[in-house]
Amino acid sequence: MQQPIKMERTGNPKAKPALTDMQLGFGQYFSDHMFLMDYTDGQGWHDPRIVPYAPLMLDPASMVFHYGQAVFEGMKAYRTTDGEAQLFLPERNAERLNRSLERLSMPPLEPGQLLNAVRTLVHVDQDWIPRQEGTSLYIRPFVIATEAAFGVRPSSRYLFTIVLSPVGAYFQEGLQPVDILAEAQDVRAVRGGTGSAKTAANYAGALRAQVEARAAGCSQVLWLDALERKYIEEVGSMNVFFRIAGHVYTPSLTGSILEGVTRGAVMELLDDWDVPCIARPISLDEVLEAAEAGTLEEAFGTGTAAVISPIGGIRWKDRFIPINGRQVGDLSQKLYDTMTGIQRGLIRDVYGWTTRI
Amino acid sequence: MQQPIKMERTGNPKAKPALTDMQLGFGQYFSDHMFLMDYTDGQGWHDPRIVPYAPLMLDPASMVFHYGQAVFEGMKAYRTTDGEAQLFLPERNAERLNRSLERLSMPPLEPGQLLNAVRTLVHVDQDWIPRQEGTSLYIRPFVIATEAAFGVRPSSRYLFTIVLSPVGAYFQEGLQPVDILAEAQDVRAVRGGTGSAKTAANYAGALRAQVEARAAGCSQVLWLDALERKYIEEVGSMNVFFRIAGHVYTPSLTGSILEGVTRGAVMELLDDWDVPCIARPISLDEVLEAAEAGTLEEAFGTGTAAVISPIGGIRWKDRFIPINGRQVGDLSQKLYDTMTGIQRGLIRDVYGWTTRI
Ligand SMILES: Cc1ncc(COP(=O)(O)O)c(C=O)c1O
Ligand SMILES: Cc1ncc(COP(=O)(O)O)c(C=O)c1O
Repeated sequence: MQQPIKMERTGNPKAKPALTDMQLGFGQYFSDHMFLMDYTDGQGWHDPRIVPYAPLMLDPASMVFHYGQAVFEGMKAYRTTDGEAQLFLPERNAERLNRSLERLSMPPLEPGQLLNAVRTLVHVDQDWIPRQEGTSLYIRPFVIATEAAFGVRPSSRYLFTIVLSPVGAYFQEGLQPVDILAEAQDVRAVRGGTGSAKTAANYAGALRAQVEARAAGCSQVLWLDALERKYIEEVGSMNVFFRIAGHVYTPSLTGSILEGVTRGAVMELLDDWDVPCIARPISLDEVLEAAEAGTLEEAFGTGTAAVISPIGGIRWKDRFIPINGRQVGDLSQKLYDTMTGIQRGLIRDVYGWTTRI
Repeated sequence: MQQPIKMERTGNPKAKPALTDMQLGFGQYFSDHMFLMDYTDGQGWHDPRIVPYAPLMLDPASMVFHYGQAVFEGMKAYRTTDGEAQLFLPERNAERLNRSLERLSMPPLEPGQLLNAVRTLVHVDQDWIPRQEGTSLYIRPFVIATEAAFGVRPSSRYLFTIVLSPVGAYFQEGLQPVDILAEAQDVRAVRGGTGSAKTAANYAGALRAQVEARAAGCSQVLWLDALERKYIEEVGSMNVFFRIAGHVYTPSLTGSILEGVTRGAVMELLDDWDVPCIARPISLDEVLEAAEAGTLEEAFGTGTAAVISPIGGIRWKDRFIPINGRQVGDLSQKLYDTMTGIQRGLIRDVYGWTTRI
């Protein structure tokens, strides 16, 4: 049985930024309230509450700072064209959160607990959901270890937090194609590690390559597998798809790749459209050869933040391989239109992907 | 030029626990003060200060919670038998901290900055250095990303903190041998990852195996390499040494192993004693075969927390391989006595390893 969520409303609402795509950027503004809930060994999750957005007070010895026990999720609330608000496949985020928690030896949430908290919080801060096309309210649930003690073992205390951020496009480029850098040196994850969990650890080691990508004029890193440095894994914060000679390919889930919610939805759409889509190991060589042979038709990343992000080209060592003349591909465009159409309630959701708040 | 450290003393000193080995455990108590310093892009490190130990106030969007940008160090202040206090090889911790910061795309500290902060803080809280044999004051410097924004990129703000914890033995077993579990499934790190940095990310994914080890009656995990799952890397929070037929072996630094300060000191001691010590790849098979052939004379872990920790046996799948009849080996004992003797000022430090506070 879930405990009722206690509510403490702010007496001091913030001035909202102009809720336009250009102004918002990504993850720069935060709404008036946040959701908190504590976990204590023996007692379980307790004291769910919505309170004014404020700094967390954490003992400096809190385990999260030292041993990285931290998982998160990323989802969005969309303003529909009829003025309502809806979530996109929130159940899958809830399932993934519990898988991430398990990998990190952290306690799972009860079924429905995430969704209930998200709905309640978004409802309270519904005025923060922007209306302009391309905007949405990004929802960031996360769990951190708060026991104040040293020693490498799971914490006995955790804090579950949800914050909300009105966002525009993830990439400044919008739906314009982005270039990506195939990383030769650093790796993101390896089987037996934490790659399939959404945990802070996977991003920490990725920053150096991200900085390198930026310096090379690329938006994101294309990760190769840690074992052979040959197979494509994913892009910075997206899964990746290639359309080669009419077939669509995406790397199979080997244990070191995040199973994206958007990836799943894209595969369902393609299936529905009778576009053959195959999840299997894909080597970088294979993609480069297809590019050379002229059969690489398009490539795109998928993720909650950017939805569909066309890839304009791949930088690999001292080569640059443009894709589709650096134009948005037909399939990328159609997927983007369909996904965002369903998310904004413009296209009827025959898949049952959306949940009204 | 370093800024002077501002000082705010507590008006409310804590009641100290009994500073005996048994009572203290590891990382359970914290002293009266902590050191803080901020970093802001453009401004650099600023506002070094010592303040009463208190919770940190951090925006819930602080990048450390989401993208794991966090590094730390572990060192100790020892009470010498003549009543003074000293540090053990603090320069090496300072160098390693900067290497860790660099790997995580975080700003380095200036030379001398860590040592100066540690000395000042330990001096202020010197009454917290316990006196009993086997005890010390554990020093935990750490740096976390504090910019409040989403998006995978290095933070523009950081907080550097040092806290102090009076500690007893790291293992409840004291110098008694501990059993370790060779991990067949999970891995700690891989080349191209963050394994050689002291960063939270390396510990997060290790917890599941640590829980498994505990359940199997072992204190720590023995990690194998991520690529072939064949070569020994290190133990939970220690580097590892094997004495086989009179020679001592320790895994070479391949990029996925932490370069322990204790490891370095042990290698210097062995060299000084004319005990051959070789850093090279060591397979688990080789160690198990030596055990079978009766040539595996002893094995031990090295680390700041435990100093020298004899290994009583290795659990590997459904086998248990006892080492040296589960007794403390001669070399382990001699290393322990020498290291702790130097640390406590009982043995003259001909190596120049210690720094008085
Ligand atoms: C590493 C990584 N891969 C893939 C994705 C895409 O997942 P989703 O479609 O669930 O947003 C994300 C994040 O959102 C990510 O961080
Ligand atoms: C993963 C790991 N390996 C090895 C060590 C040993 O390093 P040091 O001797 O510097 O304490 C530690 C920690 O202290 C560690 O956390």
